[in-house]
Amino acid sequence: MFIIGERINGMFKDIADAIRARDPYPIQKWARRQEACGARYLDLSIGPLVRDQEKAMRWLVQTTQEVTDLPLCLDSISFDVIEAGLELCKRPAMINAVPAEWPKMERVFTMAKRYNAAVIGLAMNEQGIPQDADTRVALFMELVSAASSYGIPMESLYLDPMVLPCNVGQAHSPEVLLALRQVKLLAEPAPRTVIGLSNISQGAKNRALLNKTFAAMAIANGLDAAIADACDAELLETIAAARVIMNLDPYGDDYIGACRKKV
Amino acid sequence: MFIIGERINGMFKDIADAIRARDPYPIQKWARRQEACGARYLDLSIGPLVRDQEKAMRWLVQTTQEVTDLPLCLDSISFDVIEAGLELCKRPAMINAVPAEWPKMERVFTMAKRYNAAVIGLAMNEQGIPQDADTRVALFMELVSAASSYGIPMESLYLDPMVLPCNVGQAHSPEVLLALRQVKLLAEPAPRTVIGLSNISQGAKNRALLNKTFAAMAIANGLDAAIADACDAELLETIAAARVIMNLDPYGDDYIGACRKKV
Repeated sequence: MFIIGERINGMFKDIADAIRARDPYPIQKWARRQEACGARYLDLSIGPLVRDQEKAMRWLVQTTQEVTDLPLCLDSISFDVIEAGLELCKRPAMINAVPAEWPKMERVFTMAKRYNAAVIGLAMNEQGIPQDADTRVALFMELVSAASSYGIPMESLYLDPMVLPCNVGQAHSPEVLLALRQVKLLAEPAPRTVIGLSNISQGAKNRALLNKTFAAMAIANGLDAAIADACDAELLETIAAARVIMNLDPYGDDYIGACRKKV
Repeated sequence: MFIIGERINGMFKDIADAIRARDPYPIQKWARRQEACGARYLDLSIGPLVRDQEKAMRWLVQTTQEVTDLPLCLDSISFDVIEAGLELCKRPAMINAVPAEWPKMERVFTMAKRYNAAVIGLAMNEQGIPQDADTRVALFMELVSAASSYGIPMESLYLDPMVLPCNVGQAHSPEVLLALRQVKLLAEPAPRTVIGLSNISQGAKNRALLNKTFAAMAIANGLDAAIADACDAELLETIAAARVIMNLDPYGDDYIGACRKKV
């Protein structure tokens, strides 16, 4: 289970300012910092406030790659913006994200095949985000079937059940956990799973507590990856503990390392 | 999801000393303290070091009931000791515990029926504790079937998958979580589930971290009750967060209360 670092995102003011000013410092600082904290991918999102998004994505990819060898997760609602970034990625990237809709799946899976990229597939379509686990899983099945038909290996398909803030979509959260667990039955080998972790706590009190608790709950249901704050120390120690409990850290080295860091 | 307070146990030196000296003060202090922290039951265990266990259990039950109305969970490997306590319980108690073995199940379920007590049924038998979830669930099925034949309602049967320390029985922990989740499919209405939470961290570093992380993971898989440290503030806030996420605290009152206590 690994973290896709969420911090290089134009929704944060320092990043939006840096992109507009083409100032590499804040971008590269966060790239290095998230890598040092153990992030396995770096999410790159321009955010809605920047003009000429394709040009901005190109600059963001190049600026990030100057200081890190981590693979990138290109995050945009525009597939043209994602493709502009993909052309410059030195390592196989991840595409964030495609819903279970045609022709969007055609565009994204074709692009993923061409650039050897992984894809995040979302449990949503033209009708929005379903509440129950079964409908989420039905959308996953459409994504699995479409990805297979374009030759995308299941290990490169990350299914995202769409986490909503628990203070507005509380009935969704148990369904999200159920949907996670059912992904592992959809194909052999199984697709991977991913969540946008911080969504669970948006607008709630004590966000860090909700984030780390939900992470443990999701790992207990087969979570493979989370877009999250890679430098949240409490989250990292919770993940280390959950990995020991799930027998994913057989000698406990990562757990002991996480405990040592705290002391 | 509720806590059975674990603190009145002869494995703790202050409790063993108090039982031997028939000193009510430490017992009543911990009874009051655990109740104030929100425990729903109090576990009472004499521990192995005290002579005349039946007499000691009678004294322990009476001493505890002088200061609290909480129901008691009588914890002993001797069913005679448990029955000595049951005779004095003012409220329906819980019997801790019976394995999936004859004639032990006969003795315990007969006693439970007579005293209107709940029963903790263990996923173990003469062969010990199985490693995999399926064998645990097979033992649960024997407990369900025996309990039903003695007229014990499913709401009074708490099935315990037997948590082992994750640093010696690491392969058990994911199986424990799987077994928890399958309990809810065994009967309609479903039996309840319980774990000895602190077992997960015995002999490990940073026990509080493992305990609270495992609690969140178990709640995500349908845990109803835990024998645990009812006064562990981090555990309580984790449980409050997990209950919001599982939609078990619809208005978030308990969660907000738990966050306030911290401030």
